[in-house]
Amino acid sequence: MVLSLSPLDRSIARGVLLDPCRYIQTLGQSDSSQRSQYKNTGNRERGAGTRISNGVFTRSPLTAVSALFHHHNKHVIEKNHVRGTASTGANDYREGGGYGGFWRVGLLTTGAMGLAGLAIYEKSQREENKAAAIEQTGGFVDGLPVYTANDVANHKSLENGVWVTYKNGVYDVTQFVHQHPGGSKIMLAAGASLEPYWSMYSSHQTKEVWSILEGMRIGNIPKSEQKDSTDKNSPYATDPARSPILRPSSKAPFNAEPPMPLLTNTFITPTDLFFVRNHLPVPNVSLKTFKLEVGCDGTKKPISLSIDDLKRKFPKKTIVSAIQCAGNRRSEMSRVKHVKGLNWNAAAVSNAEWGGVRLYDILKEAGIDLDDYRGCHVQFEGLDKGPEGATYGASIPVDIIQNMKFDVILAYEMNGKDLPRDHGFPLRVIAPGIVGARNVKWVNKIVISKEESHSHWQRNDYKGFNPSVDWNNVNFDKSASIQQLPVNSAICEPSDGSTLEPDAEEVVVKGYALSGGGRGIIRVDISTDGGETWHEAELDQCKEQTLYKMWAWTLWEAVVPLPAKHGGSAQIICKAVDSSYNVQPDGVEGIWNLRGCLVNPWHRIKICIPSENTA
Amino acid sequence: MVLSLSPLDRSIARGVLLDPCRYIQTLGQSDSSQRSQYKNTGNRERGAGTRISNGVFTRSPLTAVSALFHHHNKHVIEKNHVRGTASTGANDYREGGGYGGFWRVGLLTTGAMGLAGLAIYEKSQREENKAAAIEQTGGFVDGLPVYTANDVANHKSLENGVWVTYKNGVYDVTQFVHQHPGGSKIMLAAGASLEPYWSMYSSHQTKEVWSILEGMRIGNIPKSEQKDSTDKNSPYATDPARSPILRPSSKAPFNAEPPMPLLTNTFITPTDLFFVRNHLPVPNVSLKTFKLEVGCDGTKKPISLSIDDLKRKFPKKTIVSAIQCAGNRRSEMSRVKHVKGLNWNAAAVSNAEWGGVRLYDILKEAGIDLDDYRGCHVQFEGLDKGPEGATYGASIPVDIIQNMKFDVILAYEMNGKDLPRDHGFPLRVIAPGIVGARNVKWVNKIVISKEESHSHWQRNDYKGFNPSVDWNNVNFDKSASIQQLPVNSAICEPSDGSTLEPDAEEVVVKGYALSGGGRGIIRVDISTDGGETWHEAELDQCKEQTLYKMWAWTLWEAVVPLPAKHGGSAQIICKAVDSSYNVQPDGVEGIWNLRGCLVNPWHRIKICIPSENTA
Repeated sequence: MVLSLSPLDRSIARGVLLDPCRYIQTLGQSDSSQRSQYKNTGNRERGAGTRISNGVFTRSPLTAVSALFHHHNKHVIEKNHVRGTASTGANDYREGGGYGGFWRVGLLTTGAMGLAGLAIYEKSQREENKAAAIEQTGGFVDGLPVYTANDVANHKSLENGVWVTYKNGVYDVTQFVHQHPGGSKIMLAAGASLEPYWSMYSSHQTKEVWSILEGMRIGNIPKSEQKDSTDKNSPYATDPARSPILRPSSKAPFNAEPPMPLLTNTFITPTDLFFVRNHLPVPNVSLKTFKLEVGCDGTKKPISLSIDDLKRKFPKKTIVSAIQCAGNRRSEMSRVKHVKGLNWNAAAVSNAEWGGVRLYDILKEAGIDLDDYRGCHVQFEGLDKGPEGATYGASIPVDIIQNMKFDVILAYEMNGKDLPRDHGFPLRVIAPGIVGARNVKWVNKIVISKEESHSHWQRNDYKGFNPSVDWNNVNFDKSASIQQLPVNSAICEPSDGSTLEPDAEEVVVKGYALSGGGRGIIRVDISTDGGETWHEAELDQCKEQTLYKMWAWTLWEAVVPLPAKHGGSAQIICKAVDSSYNVQPDGVEGIWNLRGCLVNPWHRIKICIPSENTA
Repeated sequence: MVLSLSPLDRSIARGVLLDPCRYIQTLGQSDSSQRSQYKNTGNRERGAGTRISNGVFTRSPLTAVSALFHHHNKHVIEKNHVRGTASTGANDYREGGGYGGFWRVGLLTTGAMGLAGLAIYEKSQREENKAAAIEQTGGFVDGLPVYTANDVANHKSLENGVWVTYKNGVYDVTQFVHQHPGGSKIMLAAGASLEPYWSMYSSHQTKEVWSILEGMRIGNIPKSEQKDSTDKNSPYATDPARSPILRPSSKAPFNAEPPMPLLTNTFITPTDLFFVRNHLPVPNVSLKTFKLEVGCDGTKKPISLSIDDLKRKFPKKTIVSAIQCAGNRRSEMSRVKHVKGLNWNAAAVSNAEWGGVRLYDILKEAGIDLDDYRGCHVQFEGLDKGPEGATYGASIPVDIIQNMKFDVILAYEMNGKDLPRDHGFPLRVIAPGIVGARNVKWVNKIVISKEESHSHWQRNDYKGFNPSVDWNNVNFDKSASIQQLPVNSAICEPSDGSTLEPDAEEVVVKGYALSGGGRGIIRVDISTDGGETWHEAELDQCKEQTLYKMWAWTLWEAVVPLPAKHGGSAQIICKAVDSSYNVQPDGVEGIWNLRGCLVNPWHRIKICIPSENTA
């Protein structure tokens, strides 16, 4: 029997699509996690061991795993990739639940079919004294074939085999994909290195895991130093290193988003995965010379504060706030009609905890009472400079700042550590509920002015227009600069175009939702039948924030039935409602705009549901 | 040649539809106003003399009027209603513009065709000394036929003749409809009395106007006293008198909205036209005994204040704020699938200037600092009681009040006068940007509590649900009470179903837009081709308010081209964008909810465009 693949899957299988993220859900998935372990716990990490995996949620773990295996094994036999046999005691199954338990369940199921992983596992149980050797995981092993990075990159599908690297080791994990406790996320590393993912998800840093990996060893990659291909004369030459997990939409300036399925992994986005939106080269700022200037247009001398001053003189305020790019989801708008801008997927949004000082306190220190400046603007200037010497700048109306004054901060910390360079070291604006473009990074100047910032980005960018405005008749002066954002939501799992288990009857859907202006999310609706019936998702929200001052995003999850007559595929739709009962528009046509900003229609993805009978 | 009528027009012509509002645009309309006179002037009356009329806007007044007259006269001749001839000097045309000028233009155009109005006008010019007689307009005139109210009611279409009454006079205004400077709004009184409209629009109270009216006199209605049909035992027997212009959706309790075309007539809705939403009989409150109690749940004794205390002890604050019913536009939702509730059209919204005291000041007087009550609710209780003795009540989260604290007022004035009984005499809550239901009328008790109001209307009504929730599975506890409203807009002119001038090429469209939470309107888009192309409307906003603290509504107007190939009819769509770039959803299906609340899809009306060739 041949595995039924969608056109997308086929193109991936032929290597046409280079982005493994597109493929992470392309075969039937399941796991045996116990759903009751998933709790709404506010601001916390959603550990891999207690999450539901993507794809089909099946209430009986054993049934699910059997079905999966039946399917998977056929594929394995066809590809003739079986490289080992083993068996395991059924007793191990009952231990399922924790992270270790996951591995055991996976191994139980793989064991019956005779795969390599379990043999290694049992070996590791029996021979724990060999730990020292195991710690050399990824070392160069004499006698094994040597593969180039290209060889590895050519193996990133279940059809061609899934290879990954770890240090100097090359591993064929094809058979392991469906046993991976983290679900199909393993496919994010297909044809490439595991290292960025393992450094992000430290649960992999155990002897047990290393053992399993080494059992799938097939070769070495050459010992070589990474070539530095950066042009030393480029203004971007001094940009910081970034996680290779990020998917750039532009490299210079650097703009990148995390893979969608990783976005909803944790309530707080890990710093390395936080989407990056740079307009210019990243400035290299020294704390010794850095000063923040705060003043008013055309009046008395501004005050000047070092980072040390900020930390010493003012109380520290921490706040969990999402930041979203105005162009998030732009690629969906471009599909209707081309728009100008970075081709963002739906992950140009992230959520972090920021620590710093209240803007209100700093203004008070500078003798500024915003009550005296109604109708004015708070201008922020960054240290990032264009080739012509102009710095990035933006402004926020005093009226908005007034409404939320205690919650606008100048952050020197992100997720408990100094701001990284990509996110504004040493200081950035966090204006919660306001578009990313006004959350100025590397901020070193604050001016209260009667006028909006004169920067290009304030006056001739980041504005909305109706769908009939084009580049011939656009007048940026006529539109309001984007500040607080409208309600938005997106499905992160399953991925668009993915294939569920044959004859799947329900699907676990996960995603995020957020709105601007502090409006919390009150409901997320999911439909799998084109909007005929809607299912309400469970919401995971920051418990310290209220519905009317919610700066963090909302993660959500729902188990929804698939339509009985789906003809092999279905569309999943999500839409969110904020605390002002604002809703997302049904389609993108009515909100299309030439800059591709403010893309918040119902989010729709397609999934394939193969049938056992026709497969 | 027979005038082409749409099915709707025909049914009106046959008297099937009793609502003349449905017909106010049913024939080609135009006027000669000079568009440049219309300015955005903030909080002001849009006087009839400086407004553009409904329907087709034509840049050459003379062309428009000629075209109109060509059309109209054919009708007039068919109906054989010509009752006079006159001519006028063309010089008068240049005087057009002011109110008197309008009349002259109207009369110029009618004059050429020989209608009665001008004769009377010229007569009045010549014989001003006959003013005393003219002031007896509407008096019983011996020798004229006597008609019953039914006779008059049977004449409310251009086909059957348009009759109106004024005091005891019966007038045939059929020929005058197209010369009426206020446009087709005259049709609102068709088959009924002019009096409520003339008392609302005092520009009619001139000798000149009375003269014109008396020139169309055809008879008398009998001198009779109005019968009082009220059941003296009904709890509603003591409800106040209301303007007959209001269109009730329920009489006991009284709920009514103004006719749509009158809604955008003035930026401030006249008090008598302000929509009325009562849940219970209107209390009859004496200022001598009225006291407002303010306190906290379960703590110290509340303070007690009379209206006189409020006026004497606290500064007066005035604020222009719209109020919108949660069920505004419900009839559109019911068309998709039945919902429970009053069948509101799109005029359950109005805009007034409110005068009173700041809630913040009153709370301070009571020793209450809202900072101590985060997460709590401000409960309001009214004096209106149900048969079981329970009073109306509602609450607003402290978080919302905090964000806007200086703008929430306890109003004792509406449009510069004491609150009328229907709107909460002597005191009501004005919580701008928040649904009408929480703007509690006849408020006499304010309590800060950890809990929301326990009233039915807070806990088991005025909440949103997804379209799949029905009365079998609804759980009101699971949904958030409606507070701040989503962005909304509607077309007020032309009316849905109206017929434009034959072969009209463009149309003047007017309406309102507003959003909750102080979010001003930044754009209103109009389409006449199903959303293929969009035209931006001119906005008329309260200049004293900013985009981020806008409590008043926005009126808007656009001149939009009609599609070349319309096949006799077209749909006009409007949609608004608020300052948080929230938009209205495309359709009603995705927001359908069993209570029919929060109806804010793109507003769509149908207009008929007859062709001269097929007429």
